[in-house]
Amino acid sequence: MTSNFELTALDALFALVADLPQVDNAASDAARARQDSLTKPPGALGRLEELAIFMAGWQGAEKPVIERAQALVFAGNHGICAQGVNPYPQEVTAQMVGNFKSGGAAINQLCRANGADLSVIALDLDQPTADFTTGPAMSPDETLAAFNTGAAAVDTSAQVLILGEMGIGNSTIAAALSNAVFGGNASDWVGRGTGSDDEGVTRKISAVERGVSLHKDLQGLDILAVLGGREQAAICGAVIAARAARIPVILDGFICTASIAPLFAVDPSLLDHCLVGHRSVEPGHQKLLAGLSKEPVLDFDMRLGEGSGAAVALGILRSALACHNGMATFAEAGVSGA
Amino acid sequence: MTSNFELTALDALFALVADLPQVDNAASDAARARQDSLTKPPGALGRLEELAIFMAGWQGAEKPVIERAQALVFAGNHGICAQGVNPYPQEVTAQMVGNFKSGGAAINQLCRANGADLSVIALDLDQPTADFTTGPAMSPDETLAAFNTGAAAVDTSAQVLILGEMGIGNSTIAAALSNAVFGGNASDWVGRGTGSDDEGVTRKISAVERGVSLHKDLQGLDILAVLGGREQAAICGAVIAARAARIPVILDGFICTASIAPLFAVDPSLLDHCLVGHRSVEPGHQKLLAGLSKEPVLDFDMRLGEGSGAAVALGILRSALACHNGMATFAEAGVSGA
Repeated sequence: MTSNFELTALDALFALVADLPQVDNAASDAARARQDSLTKPPGALGRLEELAIFMAGWQGAEKPVIERAQALVFAGNHGICAQGVNPYPQEVTAQMVGNFKSGGAAINQLCRANGADLSVIALDLDQPTADFTTGPAMSPDETLAAFNTGAAAVDTSAQVLILGEMGIGNSTIAAALSNAVFGGNASDWVGRGTGSDDEGVTRKISAVERGVSLHKDLQGLDILAVLGGREQAAICGAVIAARAARIPVILDGFICTASIAPLFAVDPSLLDHCLVGHRSVEPGHQKLLAGLSKEPVLDFDMRLGEGSGAAVALGILRSALACHNGMATFAEAGVSGA
Repeated sequence: MTSNFELTALDALFALVADLPQVDNAASDAARARQDSLTKPPGALGRLEELAIFMAGWQGAEKPVIERAQALVFAGNHGICAQGVNPYPQEVTAQMVGNFKSGGAAINQLCRANGADLSVIALDLDQPTADFTTGPAMSPDETLAAFNTGAAAVDTSAQVLILGEMGIGNSTIAAALSNAVFGGNASDWVGRGTGSDDEGVTRKISAVERGVSLHKDLQGLDILAVLGGREQAAICGAVIAARAARIPVILDGFICTASIAPLFAVDPSLLDHCLVGHRSVEPGHQKLLAGLSKEPVLDFDMRLGEGSGAAVALGILRSALACHNGMATFAEAGVSGA
């Protein structure tokens, strides 16, 4: 069952915010009460308890389940590579998509290990977006098309959605989106990405500075259009389609999280159903997490993308629900309370 | 295949240190080289890479596997409860063992979710150890018997061993062992455990102060005997039997980690094959990890014991090996390097 969510125009999202599903507080309250009845000191499972309660609220059930987990990886190419922002050739994006499709990448192994069904969606790799230092990266129509491709890829029969991305040059895109939404200096948001040296980092900072100053005072999804890329737009679409279907989302690292910064600019509550899977070592991620008020599930010194950190976090979520649903209560087990 | 490792006397361990297996550096070097050939920027999988290399070194194989994971939970009762150190009645130890055996505890769910075979070993629950504020908690013979029970429980056909514990009052035991091995003040090592209030914490600190000052200047496993409990001795035995069989160990939180502090006192290298699964919120754990120079796998605000944090960490280890063994190299996938 694929989502039939479709956006008709970029600014139409503002009017939809109030109509999207909200967390079911009765279900999360029931899940919290259940946690306190289980055979353990209250709170002793720490963040596993919080994750189970979060899932309960979005599934609208005291005992939430994950029967099907979907992983979507979107890939795109970027005109910003003309600025020398990445040491890898742009062909690597298509080569890695081939690697995803033949099962050889990290995300393939992590989806298998943690029980997610992976789909990889390449978005017009032979037509990179425009270089945002000279003009808008995408037209509104290109942005909308990629957004709706992302939305349509969401399987509404899944109970959780993992999002990832691949695109040579897209840590520069992520820095630009973050800078446009959360301010600060370009250098706050730029890191080494896939492995830039000091000169490469200097080129990235310069590109972000020029792009952000060329495209000022933008609102909502126009930020996504002028500074983003197709995989960023597709991630935004998938996040909103998942929300419409009450499916919690696990975002990945810096680039995936930065992709949804334009949604935060539309309305922060659009991200209430999103977890961040891990804290990337990419330095901009910490600042971005602070801006979004999100605490990541894991902190594992990872910086790969592809949805890899989100897929590892899925395993944690499964552990959380296993305890929540499977443990005996004090009464059931005949264990004395304190 | 159970281990036939047996210690003949507590001080016999000193002589065995040099004969125990060491990490296979050739295998870990080969695993490190493999990681650098996989289709990702070098180091991009962060701690997942380190875990795979660690497993390779102890399995003596470039591509280590986990076909069987064993989880052992040891339970004991403690005379120190006479000092009012725990709000729960001592009967809860046996009640929780019953809960483990009927499958209702957190560790049951976490072993199932992360693929470990669980055994629970109750150690003379009807004969609590002596109150260490008035004399030695255990005789050398009692300590040796529990140590060897732990050693004999290790399945040498497993590729990884998870250790956990249950015992009302044993966060006070853990504080005393830590204080005796690593020094400082009793208050550095005492926390709320299963849920002590301020007065309970004061009683715990007082008990640890009196116990540690009563039993001074002890060496090696004599610390374990006079301040420990049976489940702590069994954990030490399992750690050494696993080492003899080259099986890496995942320790759990504060109490499990403190249980092996006496092994550190014998020789720090005895713990080279041990990971710590998670950082407990129990405040002594952070200081203990620093003393042991161990960085935990996870940091998840957990404080349950039972091996729960170690079982969650097993899932992370499985993700690490899935990537390490299953990913394509740049050459295999036809992906261009930087």
